Amino acid sequence: MRALVERLSEIVGPAGLITAPQEVAPYATDWRKRYLGKAVAVVKPASTAEVAGVVLVCADSRTAIVPQGGNTGLCGAATPDASGTQIILNLSRMNRIREVDARNNTMIVEAGCVLANLHRAAEEVGRLFPLSLAAEGSCEIGGNLSTNAGGTAVLRYGNARDLVLGLEVVLPSGEVWEGLRGLRKDNTGYDLKQLFIGAEGTLGVITAAVLKLFPLPKSRATAVVALQSPEKALALLERALEACGERLTGFELFSDFCLALVLKHFGDAAAPFPRRFPHYVLMELSDTQSGGGVRALAENVLEAALGEKNILDAAVAQSETQARDFWKLREFISEAQAHEGSNIKHDVSIPISRIADFISATDQELARAHAGVRLVTFGHVGDGNLHYNVSAPEGVAPDVFVKNTAAINRLVHDSVARFGGSISAEHGLGQLKRAEIQRYKSALELELMRKLKRALDPHGIMNPGKVL
Amino acid sequence: MRALVERLSEIVGPAGLITAPQEVAPYATDWRKRYLGKAVAVVKPASTAEVAGVVLVCADSRTAIVPQGGNTGLCGAATPDASGTQIILNLSRMNRIREVDARNNTMIVEAGCVLANLHRAAEEVGRLFPLSLAAEGSCEIGGNLSTNAGGTAVLRYGNARDLVLGLEVVLPSGEVWEGLRGLRKDNTGYDLKQLFIGAEGTLGVITAAVLKLFPLPKSRATAVVALQSPEKALALLERALEACGERLTGFELFSDFCLALVLKHFGDAAAPFPRRFPHYVLMELSDTQSGGGVRALAENVLEAALGEKNILDAAVAQSETQARDFWKLREFISEAQAHEGSNIKHDVSIPISRIADFISATDQELARAHAGVRLVTFGHVGDGNLHYNVSAPEGVAPDVFVKNTAAINRLVHDSVARFGGSISAEHGLGQLKRAEIQRYKSALELELMRKLKRALDPHGIMNPGKVL
Repeated sequence: MRALVERLSEIVGPAGLITAPQEVAPYATDWRKRYLGKAVAVVKPASTAEVAGVVLVCADSRTAIVPQGGNTGLCGAATPDASGTQIILNLSRMNRIREVDARNNTMIVEAGCVLANLHRAAEEVGRLFPLSLAAEGSCEIGGNLSTNAGGTAVLRYGNARDLVLGLEVVLPSGEVWEGLRGLRKDNTGYDLKQLFIGAEGTLGVITAAVLKLFPLPKSRATAVVALQSPEKALALLERALEACGERLTGFELFSDFCLALVLKHFGDAAAPFPRRFPHYVLMELSDTQSGGGVRALAENVLEAALGEKNILDAAVAQSETQARDFWKLREFISEAQAHEGSNIKHDVSIPISRIADFISATDQELARAHAGVRLVTFGHVGDGNLHYNVSAPEGVAPDVFVKNTAAINRLVHDSVARFGGSISAEHGLGQLKRAEIQRYKSALELELMRKLKRALDPHGIMNPGKVL
Repeated sequence: MRALVERLSEIVGPAGLITAPQEVAPYATDWRKRYLGKAVAVVKPASTAEVAGVVLVCADSRTAIVPQGGNTGLCGAATPDASGTQIILNLSRMNRIREVDARNNTMIVEAGCVLANLHRAAEEVGRLFPLSLAAEGSCEIGGNLSTNAGGTAVLRYGNARDLVLGLEVVLPSGEVWEGLRGLRKDNTGYDLKQLFIGAEGTLGVITAAVLKLFPLPKSRATAVVALQSPEKALALLERALEACGERLTGFELFSDFCLALVLKHFGDAAAPFPRRFPHYVLMELSDTQSGGGVRALAENVLEAALGEKNILDAAVAQSETQARDFWKLREFISEAQAHEGSNIKHDVSIPISRIADFISATDQELARAHAGVRLVTFGHVGDGNLHYNVSAPEGVAPDVFVKNTAAINRLVHDSVARFGGSISAEHGLGQLKRAEIQRYKSALELELMRKLKRALDPHGIMNPGKVL
C-alpha cells in the first residue's frame, strides 16, 4: 500500500493526493449517505497524462479504481467498497474548458467541469448547453456522461448521450483513447464513445468530451394544467407535440398528493388554482424566436384541450416570476417528500402510451398488498420517466415503513417489467440496483455486457462491484 | 457445400434459397457495380427464428455471412468476396411492420422494410419518420441502421443512430438478443444497441428495430440563396440556426459548377436567378404549425442577410412546385456529374466552422498537384458533410483521369485529417475504405475495434473483410 501511495504521489504531487482517513471519508461516502466505503487514497490528477499515469500504476498493481466526479450520484456508483483496497480517482481538478466553437456548436470540456459552469460558458457565446438537473451546481460533466444523465430537458434535447460528439478516455490499460472529434457525421467503424457513456466508470475513465451546443431560446411560456387523470395528460402531451413540435421543452406530471406535500412543507409555495384537482402537468414551450408567439401557441393548445374537456383548468404564467413559481411546484417535490419522512423511491420508465395503465395497475396492486400507502407520483412524463415513490400510510412511521422496501421494489419493478419498462430510467445501476437488474435483464444480455467488460478491462480494475 | 446448402434449405425452404449462379449474381454485385463477388447461396429468411437458424448453421460450419438489405450501399459492405465460400443473408423477406404506437411515437419494424414504406406507415398515423436519402425507394431499414445512414434530414433529426430506441439482433452465435425496448430513458447498463448500429453487419444481424417517430410538419419554406463563398454560407447557417432553431431542416451548399452540370444535363431544370453566382445554398424551414409563419421567418432571415451583404440574392419558393424545382437543383447533382463522366468522389465531414478553410486549402492543393481539375463541391453543410468530388480537367477523358484516384484520394483525405475531419461521413467503410482507414485512425482505436469484434464474433464469421 505504501509503495502504491508513493507511486501515485510521484504522479499527482501532494496537491493531488488525500490519504488521511478523515479527509478521505467524505469522498468515500455517497450523496445520500447510504454507502460508506473506504479507500487507500483519493487521487486528484490535474491532467489527462496524470490520469493515465495513475491508471497505469493501478493496472500494474491490480488496484481497483473508483472514478468520481462531483459525487452527487444516487446509486453509489462513485463510492468505493468497504475493503479499503480501492482508490478513488476524483476528476474535479480537471476542470478546464479547452475550446468553445460557437460556429461548430461545440465545446471541448474536461471531465471535472461543474455542469452549471458549462451552462454559463455556452451562454457567453449565445448558445445553450441543455443538460439540466437538480445537482447542476455541483455535479461534473464526466459523471453526467458516465451515468448518461437525464434531467428536465430530455424531451427536447435527449439524454447526456445525445449531447456528445466525441470523448477522450483513459483505458484500463492506462492508454489514452483520443476520440475528441467534433463531427456530426463519422461513419468510420464502431462508435466507441457509446461504450463509455453510461458505463458508470466500469470500462475506462472519461477525461474530456466534445459537447453539442444549441441555439439559445429567446422566449418561453410556462403553464400549469389541471387534469382528471394521467390518461388525460398523455392525450394533452400528444396534442401539444403535434402542435408545438420541438417547442415543447418540458412536460412534467405530478399528482395532487405531491402538490399537497409541497404546499405543506414550503410556506411560500402557492397553489396554482383556487381549487384542487387530481393531477397536474407543468408544461413549458420555448422558442428561438422572441416575442409572444410561443405564449399564444400555449394558450391555443390549452384552450382547445379545455374545449374538448380533456383538461380541467390551466394557468399560463404571466411573468418570469410566476413561471419560476410554477416550476418550484415541481422542483420542490423531492425535498418536500424528504421533509415528510423517507419513502421508497423508484426511477422507472415506461413506453409513454402505457404510463396511465402502468400507474393505475401498480397503484391497485400496491393498495391490495400494502393498504393505505400514499403515492408520490411525479416525473418527466414526456420522456416516459416516472419517479414513482411510495410513502407510508397515514400514522405509520416512515422508518418502520421502509422495512417494506424489498417487497415494494419487487412489486413495482415487476409491474414495470410487465409494461415493457426499465427499472432505472436515469439514475443508473451503480451498487444500488446491481443485484436487482439480474432479475429483469436476460442472461444473454448480461453475458454480452460481461463480454464487453472482459474485452476492455480484463483484470477488472475499473470500478468493480458496480453495474455488473 | 452441398451439406451446408441442404441444411440452409431445411430452415428457409425453397422460397428462401437461391443457388443458381445467374440468380445469385445480382445479389453478389454492389449497387455501383464495382465489386463482383460470388456466393454459395443467397438465403432469404422470413422470420427472426429463421435468421437465427441460418446463423447457427453457419457458425457450426464456420461459413462467412454477408448480411444484405436493399443492396444500395456505396462501399461494398453487402457484397461477398470472390471466394465463393460465403453466403449472402438477404433480409428482404422480413418486411413486416410489427407495431405502430403513435402515442409513444415509435414503430417496431423488421429489417427488410423498405425505407419509403416506413415513411408512409408513419404518415398514416400523422407522424414523420425523418430518415430520408436518395435510395429510399429500395434501401431497407436494416441496412440503413447497419450503416448508420445519413441523408438530407440529419441537421434536424440526426443520423439513423439517433432514430433508434431498440434493436433485435441475431448474434454470431445464433442467439437472439431481444432489445426491442421502446423507451426514451433506460440506464440499466451498457447501451448494447449502439454496437450494432453502424457496424456494417460485422457484429451481428439486425432483424428488427424500434424507431422514433416525430410530429408531422404542417408548413414548409424553401429558398435558394446566392453567395460569394462557402465562408458566407457558414455565416448564414449560424444566423439561420440562431433565428429558426429546429425549424431549420435543410441547409445544402453547392457550387456554380454543380449548377452548371445540372442545367447542362437536365433540360427542364431552371436556373434560380437571372444571373449566376459563385455558390448557392438550398435552405429549408419546416414547422408543426401550419400557415405562413415559417415563410415569413425565412424571408426575415434572408432580408437581414442581404442587408448585411452576407448573401448576394435569394428566392423563396412561391409554391410547392417551385420548392420541388429548387430541391431538384440539389438532388440532380449526383446524376448530372455521372452524365458528365465519372469523377473521383469523397464523402467527408469537417467541423462546420472549418469547412470554408478546408475547401479553400484543398482546392488550392489540388490545383497545384493536378492542374485544371474541376470541383463538384456540394453537400449537407449543415452537418459538416461535403461530397467533395473531383472531375477531370476540360479536355481530359474521365476514364483517363480516374487513374489519379489513389493520388487524389490521398491528397483530399490527408487534408480532411488535418482539419480534424472524417474520410467517411455517411457512407461507411465497407470494402472501399477498409485499407485506407488504417492511415487515419490510431492503432489504439483500431485495436479497440478489433477487441470488440473478437469479443462478439470470435470465429470471424460476420461479414469478414469489411470495416476491419
